[in-house]
Amino acid sequence: MKKLIIASTSTVHGSSYLAYILPQLEEFFKDTKEVLFIPYARPGGISHDAYTEIARKGFTAIGKSVSGIHTFDDPAEALRNAKAVFTGGGNTFLLVTQLYKNGIMEVLRDAVLGGVLYFGTSAGANITGLTMQTTNDMPIIYPPSFKTLGLVPFNINPHYLDPSEGSKHMGETRETRIREFHRINTQPVVGLREGSWLEVTGDTITLRGDLTARIFEQDKDPYEIGTNSNLRIS
Amino acid sequence: MKKLIIASTSTVHGSSYLAYILPQLEEFFKDTKEVLFIPYARPGGISHDAYTEIARKGFTAIGKSVSGIHTFDDPAEALRNAKAVFTGGGNTFLLVTQLYKNGIMEVLRDAVLGGVLYFGTSAGANITGLTMQTTNDMPIIYPPSFKTLGLVPFNINPHYLDPSEGSKHMGETRETRIREFHRINTQPVVGLREGSWLEVTGDTITLRGDLTARIFEQDKDPYEIGTNSNLRIS
Repeated sequence: MKKLIIASTSTVHGSSYLAYILPQLEEFFKDTKEVLFIPYARPGGISHDAYTEIARKGFTAIGKSVSGIHTFDDPAEALRNAKAVFTGGGNTFLLVTQLYKNGIMEVLRDAVLGGVLYFGTSAGANITGLTMQTTNDMPIIYPPSFKTLGLVPFNINPHYLDPSEGSKHMGETRETRIREFHRINTQPVVGLREGSWLEVTGDTITLRGDLTARIFEQDKDPYEIGTNSNLRIS
Repeated sequence: MKKLIIASTSTVHGSSYLAYILPQLEEFFKDTKEVLFIPYARPGGISHDAYTEIARKGFTAIGKSVSGIHTFDDPAEALRNAKAVFTGGGNTFLLVTQLYKNGIMEVLRDAVLGGVLYFGTSAGANITGLTMQTTNDMPIIYPPSFKTLGLVPFNINPHYLDPSEGSKHMGETRETRIREFHRINTQPVVGLREGSWLEVTGDTITLRGDLTARIFEQDKDPYEIGTNSNLRIS
């Protein structure tokens, strides 16, 4: 049975890396000592090693050891042998390109469908959706496809941001961008605010954290769902 | 000789469509009565007709007539017959996809190199650069390539936004995104704030408007250039 934690962000303002979600991670990963880390999204362009070190430090607090997938000769085999995977945030275009380049997009999907625990933040959350097309990131590299893992029946918009009142900036709001998306795409979009995450257990998807989430469906007004409620969109 | 106005935005806060730049447009387009409009970026997903109507209204104030390129059976021929082109903002992925789909990316480039006046705002500004990879837009459609017109020897980041002090949002700042871009791409990036534009006359590129612009070059600290100064990057 698939089990995922899909988190808007790794870090909330004023707190250290992963700190806000550690109690949940401790419970989620209780049956494994080792977590395989996918550092491909390289936030700020840092190296795979440096990024893995950050993830390692974050997981030390709950007594897990972390290995970077880039240290394995055969990343597909590493995934097949893993019990738990964490994909960190950064640039979604880079993450998706690297997953395809290494031939492991499908392998990762199969692993999670087969019961490997999956935790993703930001870009690592975005790729659990049907496509990466509601990312906020810059297209710094051209991926072979925008199709992603499809482990949930919708798209994710991480770091969802409400329109800022009184702003004089004329660039599109997040809501406008998602509306443009829905003029040519049909899949629903879940806007996950920072500090929110989705807990997926088989077909049950539950919103967690303190905030509501904003749901966008084609040809409908966007609406909010409350924390601890189940998502019934498909 | 190529002549372009590359503007960060069509509209500045508190002003009507194109109003802030009309005196310059009047001078720039003084030798033509007709402007061919490319509405492909469809802001907010509006129709090509509705978007052309907005552009038409904007240009009425300086006595120009505007035709939408979508109303011509052969858009390539429309471009070859044009004296002046305006490409409006919206979604850059959609704009670039449509230009490729209609086989006119190269035709548009050749037209401008041949002396057709070009005015672009936002997404229409972004495509004058080497690639569209420093757009802020959502990848709502998969374009055949990220390569764009290459009419200037760098990339454009329209609606350039300084980090907002005191923000609690953890999503990447614009500067971080461009730094990630430069970890794997070499071309310089010009961050154009709203209300700024580049005036291109042959090989001379001059910053106009009231604000400075922020220049990002690989392996260098970003720096500001003053208004009315020439860009000497390549």
